[in-house]
Amino acid sequence: MEFTAQQIAELIQGEIEGNAEQVIRDVSKIEEGRRETLTFLANPKYEHHIYNTDASVVIVNKSFTPEKPIKATLIKVEDAYQALAKLLQMYESSLPKKTGIEQPSFIADDAQIGDFVYVGAFAYISEKTKIGKNTQIWPGAFIGEGVEIGDDTIVYSGAKIYKHCKVGNNCIIHSGAVIGSDGFGFAPGPDGDYQKIPQVGNVILEDLVEIGANTTIDRATMGSTIIRRGAKLDNLVQIAHNVEVGANTVIAAQTGVAGSTKIGKNCMFGGQVGIAGHIKVADGTKLAAQTGVGGAIKKEGTTLMGSPAFNAMEYNKSYVIFRKLPDIYKQLQELKKKITEK
Amino acid sequence: MEFTAQQIAELIQGEIEGNAEQVIRDVSKIEEGRRETLTFLANPKYEHHIYNTDASVVIVNKSFTPEKPIKATLIKVEDAYQALAKLLQMYESSLPKKTGIEQPSFIADDAQIGDFVYVGAFAYISEKTKIGKNTQIWPGAFIGEGVEIGDDTIVYSGAKIYKHCKVGNNCIIHSGAVIGSDGFGFAPGPDGDYQKIPQVGNVILEDLVEIGANTTIDRATMGSTIIRRGAKLDNLVQIAHNVEVGANTVIAAQTGVAGSTKIGKNCMFGGQVGIAGHIKVADGTKLAAQTGVGGAIKKEGTTLMGSPAFNAMEYNKSYVIFRKLPDIYKQLQELKKKITEK
Amino acid sequence: MEFTAQQIAELIQGEIEGNAEQVIRDVSKIEEGRRETLTFLANPKYEHHIYNTDASVVIVNKSFTPEKPIKATLIKVEDAYQALAKLLQMYESSLPKKTGIEQPSFIADDAQIGDFVYVGAFAYISEKTKIGKNTQIWPGAFIGEGVEIGDDTIVYSGAKIYKHCKVGNNCIIHSGAVIGSDGFGFAPGPDGDYQKIPQVGNVILEDLVEIGANTTIDRATMGSTIIRRGAKLDNLVQIAHNVEVGANTVIAAQTGVAGSTKIGKNCMFGGQVGIAGHIKVADGTKLAAQTGVGGAIKKEGTTLMGSPAFNAMEYNKSYVIFRKLPDIYKQLQELKKKITEK
Repeated sequence: MEFTAQQIAELIQGEIEGNAEQVIRDVSKIEEGRRETLTFLANPKYEHHIYNTDASVVIVNKSFTPEKPIKATLIKVEDAYQALAKLLQMYESSLPKKTGIEQPSFIADDAQIGDFVYVGAFAYISEKTKIGKNTQIWPGAFIGEGVEIGDDTIVYSGAKIYKHCKVGNNCIIHSGAVIGSDGFGFAPGPDGDYQKIPQVGNVILEDLVEIGANTTIDRATMGSTIIRRGAKLDNLVQIAHNVEVGANTVIAAQTGVAGSTKIGKNCMFGGQVGIAGHIKVADGTKLAAQTGVGGAIKKEGTTLMGSPAFNAMEYNKSYVIFRKLPDIYKQLQELKKKITEK
Repeated sequence: MEFTAQQIAELIQGEIEGNAEQVIRDVSKIEEGRRETLTFLANPKYEHHIYNTDASVVIVNKSFTPEKPIKATLIKVEDAYQALAKLLQMYESSLPKKTGIEQPSFIADDAQIGDFVYVGAFAYISEKTKIGKNTQIWPGAFIGEGVEIGDDTIVYSGAKIYKHCKVGNNCIIHSGAVIGSDGFGFAPGPDGDYQKIPQVGNVILEDLVEIGANTTIDRATMGSTIIRRGAKLDNLVQIAHNVEVGANTVIAAQTGVAGSTKIGKNCMFGGQVGIAGHIKVADGTKLAAQTGVGGAIKKEGTTLMGSPAFNAMEYNKSYVIFRKLPDIYKQLQELKKKITEK
Repeated sequence: MEFTAQQIAELIQGEIEGNAEQVIRDVSKIEEGRRETLTFLANPKYEHHIYNTDASVVIVNKSFTPEKPIKATLIKVEDAYQALAKLLQMYESSLPKKTGIEQPSFIADDAQIGDFVYVGAFAYISEKTKIGKNTQIWPGAFIGEGVEIGDDTIVYSGAKIYKHCKVGNNCIIHSGAVIGSDGFGFAPGPDGDYQKIPQVGNVILEDLVEIGANTTIDRATMGSTIIRRGAKLDNLVQIAHNVEVGANTVIAAQTGVAGSTKIGKNCMFGGQVGIAGHIKVADGTKLAAQTGVGGAIKKEGTTLMGSPAFNAMEYNKSYVIFRKLPDIYKQLQELKKKITEK
């Protein structure tokens, strides 16, 4: 690729400060910027790099005021991160897309395959499935019986979708993700052995959902486990049976949600969070990494921390004192002694 | 499907209260109950739904006494959850089962394949393997050299079993599970580089074991990593080399057990639990979610919590005070001041 | 196999105490030692087994002084664990290695495949890839477009490597590992919907890296996510985009590292550790299992614990008092009462 700063600025409606004719041929991170590359500054933590970067063009927020001279050409936009997203999306959509059916693959006779679909070699598409147009099923992916997948969705190599699950439009399912495995349900018998509760429900992913690599989403015992429109799940996340994840909720890696819990919309969970079963989590809840939620969260928009979780600011206050506990204990013993001596 | 309440009651030895001729055509969750569906009530948390549900028939415990009138027909049994398990099992076993060898698949010449086995397309069955009768190897599964699998076992799509592992009868291994990967063993060399300790043991799954999606069980350095009869492992669980998991022990998602630890029978671990290596965990131990076990648990049947773990009731008592720490600290400083002033 | 103690001693430059002609035919764990097997003692926790083991030959450290008579023949070496590593490596390298291309597999016309490579059935090797000599690509593995893999590397069954990633020499990638999935990057839009930031970077694994089963390593947004020479990652680890893991750093199972964090060399992390994004972790840092690191670790060689993490010894001291909190609270109230009464 080769663009001028001027061309980039037009694509993202930005204002140029510096050499509008500056050419860029690649992108780079600001801390590793190379000549003739484009980079961006959004996180203030990285601001000091802008004064030394060798990148030739930097997209910045309009609100950014340099403290020192900058040799790179700047493109000022309302939101540098969004502008970058837009640019990279344009770049990606300019790349050629795979279509067609590679051999050997396995496609059941009654599978309905839309136009411009890509089916990679060793992909398996079962009976009674429907695959929408422009959708890509990468090599080695497995699509179970009766599964329906919408348009413009990508199922990467080796992802598995068990029978009767439904996937919307514009979804991305990364390699190794498992959608629709059995929920973890057993009835304890009198002899200590467990009876399996067959899981006869499914999983529904609505539109614009992204599922990370090796994430697992169990099918419902009855009814559906549901991931609502626009929700984004990172890698190695566990979603148990009958859970519901609200629209545009973002869940970082290695988080687990136990059975039948309903998570609201616009939530943000850090990594390694655990959420108990059969509870409701209010819209807009934020959970710090490694938080453990044991009970319902009723108030919208709160930030929690700790295990069991409570208000994050209060957790931090308590934790500061936790670190002083040996000293506090000593002080208390001294006080007791003093008082007893009196 | 179509049954009357009477027919269902006979299958599960229940007693009818209401319309014995009521027809049901599907199952549903009590909170989403629809007309002409069967549902159940086991968890008291959901009791309030029974007074409003549109489900036509509800299986309940004999001990359940309604507080208000219920329009649905009730079927009363000793244990509603077990009765449901039994019904759903009857339903599942009535579905047609896959058998036969799909093409293309890879089956070594000397593999021994039992009667009524299903081998899906792209499944790989190595040399010197034995696959018992009625066992299903789904598409894309990998069965390593010398692996033995019993009868009536299901290995779902894309599960991987490394060489020399043994799987019993009536096991279920979900998609993406990896059985027999190398244990994590390295000997530090003088130059800081690590020497790999080749892992020459295997993994043994006894009968009636269920392994969740993307769970990993490492082979032993020498000898065997063993999952005993009836143990159930949820998704994304990590079992390190030389671990032993006792019979009928249930391990929830994202739990990890470090090397050479021996876990007793009838244990129940919540999600995201971590257990250190080279320790013993007594029979019947219960661990709350996110517990971290650093040392042996000797007393049978205790419930632990926290990291490092101790008695759950005491943990909760301490945690209540943890939340008051800023206030306690303040009180202590005031007391000190008072005493010094005196 | 069949060796005498004498032969083994020569291979590992050890000194024999006992019967040099003793024959061994297999290896075993010391606690399960059987006649005519070889075992070892390195961890002092297992010392008591040496006095009862039925194993015929035991490799021990030179520094080991028995407290009681031992019936087994001893082979004394500088470092028993390293000597075992060496022996098992010799054993493994004596086993026949798979080479050749199995059918059906998918290899793009322009893929460059080195000598003595093994490509298993159902493996998929994309366009513009380079696979070095002696490298093994097991059944069902996926190698994306433009991927380069060095010599003597093993990619086990069902591992997936996305486009443009680079893997060095002598690496091992276990089943189900996903290398190069998209980093988790989204720009929040004004309507609450998220815009995907296309991830145009890659992942680089340097030489001698081992990646555990079902571990996930995301590609960089721009530039590279890098795992340096000799680093060892256990199963189910999550490495986010733009992370760097230093040389010879060892990361136990289920640990997660958030985006753009730089981890030094020679670190050791226990299981289920979580590390926040955009920070630096100094060389030689040790983290106890379940530690949560929220900020930079600047001092080399420290051991941390807790969430948020601090010095492990201090954490333990505080935690001891945490367990006494209910009692401390009571004492404090009594003191207050006493003082007020005075």
